[in-house]
Amino acid sequence: MRELELIAELERTLAPGGADVLRGLGDDAALVRAGAYAVTSVDTMVDGIHFRRGQLEPEEIGHRALAGALSDLAAMAVRPGQAYMALGLPQDSELRDAVALAEGAQALASELGVAIAGGDVTRALSLTVSFTVVGWTDDPGELVGRDGAKPGDLVAVTGTLGGAGAGLALLDGRARAQGTLDARAALGLRERYARPRPRLAEGVALSSLGARAMIDLSDGLATDAQHLAMRSGVRIEVSLARLPLADGVAAVAEQLETDGATFGATAGEDYELCACLPPSAERLARRDGLALSWIGRVLAGPPEVAFTDAAEPLSGYEHSL
Amino acid sequence: MRELELIAELERTLAPGGADVLRGLGDDAALVRAGAYAVTSVDTMVDGIHFRRGQLEPEEIGHRALAGALSDLAAMAVRPGQAYMALGLPQDSELRDAVALAEGAQALASELGVAIAGGDVTRALSLTVSFTVVGWTDDPGELVGRDGAKPGDLVAVTGTLGGAGAGLALLDGRARAQGTLDARAALGLRERYARPRPRLAEGVALSSLGARAMIDLSDGLATDAQHLAMRSGVRIEVSLARLPLADGVAAVAEQLETDGATFGATAGEDYELCACLPPSAERLARRDGLALSWIGRVLAGPPEVAFTDAAEPLSGYEHSL
Repeated sequence: MRELELIAELERTLAPGGADVLRGLGDDAALVRAGAYAVTSVDTMVDGIHFRRGQLEPEEIGHRALAGALSDLAAMAVRPGQAYMALGLPQDSELRDAVALAEGAQALASELGVAIAGGDVTRALSLTVSFTVVGWTDDPGELVGRDGAKPGDLVAVTGTLGGAGAGLALLDGRARAQGTLDARAALGLRERYARPRPRLAEGVALSSLGARAMIDLSDGLATDAQHLAMRSGVRIEVSLARLPLADGVAAVAEQLETDGATFGATAGEDYELCACLPPSAERLARRDGLALSWIGRVLAGPPEVAFTDAAEPLSGYEHSL
Repeated sequence: MRELELIAELERTLAPGGADVLRGLGDDAALVRAGAYAVTSVDTMVDGIHFRRGQLEPEEIGHRALAGALSDLAAMAVRPGQAYMALGLPQDSELRDAVALAEGAQALASELGVAIAGGDVTRALSLTVSFTVVGWTDDPGELVGRDGAKPGDLVAVTGTLGGAGAGLALLDGRARAQGTLDARAALGLRERYARPRPRLAEGVALSSLGARAMIDLSDGLATDAQHLAMRSGVRIEVSLARLPLADGVAAVAEQLETDGATFGATAGEDYELCACLPPSAERLARRDGLALSWIGRVLAGPPEVAFTDAAEPLSGYEHSL
């Protein structure tokens, strides 16, 4: 592949959108109009470790890498402005695959109003896609860290869990769809793995509901809730019976000799959000039509996450309806 | 290596410096006070491609990766504020080597007043260090792109050329120091390769002298000047006889069956700056005591770089002293 040809193609593909990008690709650095505060995160995906080239289309690899990075901004409750792509290409890469990867990222970026304003292409031993993403805020008080959970808070998650892990099990051949899942559910699970959606709107909505601590579920609920517990210095109790499982997860989990809830609590890469909020948020979420699952509560105690089977209501509110 | 232990060690090593970092490592994203405009660049170095683990100390790998990224900001004439490190570690990595790499980057960052405000650690097939660096400016007019060179401009470079390439040739065993170089020169060449200095102060000084186009020499003068020629739509003539070679480069070049000037024009990774400036800058640089070598001139014509052997003065100024 000729490097200059690739760079020219990438510059055509990653057309800098947005009036805030004064200089985009093609110079030593990008120039972008800033807000008062920058919120910045970096996320890297490597072939053979975070995905396998044979299992995903190049467009999906690009989409997924950008989505994973943007998910960190969602977890801070900030809207993304720009993204910078560092692409490491092995020697056997095809020009059209590299361009398709960029197209997949650009399609997601366009949809979300993000400008891919710069980047870097190098040779690498394995396909590596790293995105640095930047959001802007004028009020850092609206951001949500990992460290603010308080005893008495409830724990909520967006969307459904286990879908990406189940999709990967199907791609890996560790589970099979035939005879256990209808075609639509199988396709849905693959899509959850291949094209995750960063929960940007939900992150901002959770902040406005008073979320005190928040994280995106990249490593799986069990691991990620542990980060909230450690950073906030609290005990988190999660009810396995309350986990919102994606369609088909139970059937896949069974083939992996576990149950759906355990699978949903430990499988990663769903990129849903997990937040700790005061109990009053439950009513506000309902009022605003924000679909959340209330899965646990925050308690005083040594920082750890405990899973229970209890399915009783978490707060008095549900009874008072 | 235990991931949590590594992350705790990295958080200790990369202590967020500077009052502008409101949230550093340990959350989903970093929070940083912004200037009016952000200038952002990404640079990635991969073991086996941009360096070899056996040839460099871990501290040098960290230093070099950050220096390479900061060099892009130097070429835009902007001071750096923050850096974000994406580290890809192969499975056989030692905790102490990963921490030493971070220490090498942190030492350079501290010296230059840069805060390493965030990052990402993943497993990778080969050691990969990617830095996203951000500088802030209130006046984009002070920045220097690649696209402003005009016929009549002179071409200047900072420092000396060929040192990093010669240092690598010694490390590779393609050339030997014994009997051809004194020990101090050999050490100097190794240092040029292992611990390059981003020319941050020089970049700002060149901007204030009126630099119209500028680039840092990462791929070598022949390739990088070509970028200036293409982006500016001009012909650039460079006098090989005027290239400022680092001590010992000629002796190494001879062993590689080339001459020092050709080697200096094509070897990469010196991270010096090459700028196109109006002729009046020559006198101003002398007045300010800014050490530059005037190596060529900008002409109208198809965008290309031509090397000549001519050593005559480039402008009338030197005769009028």
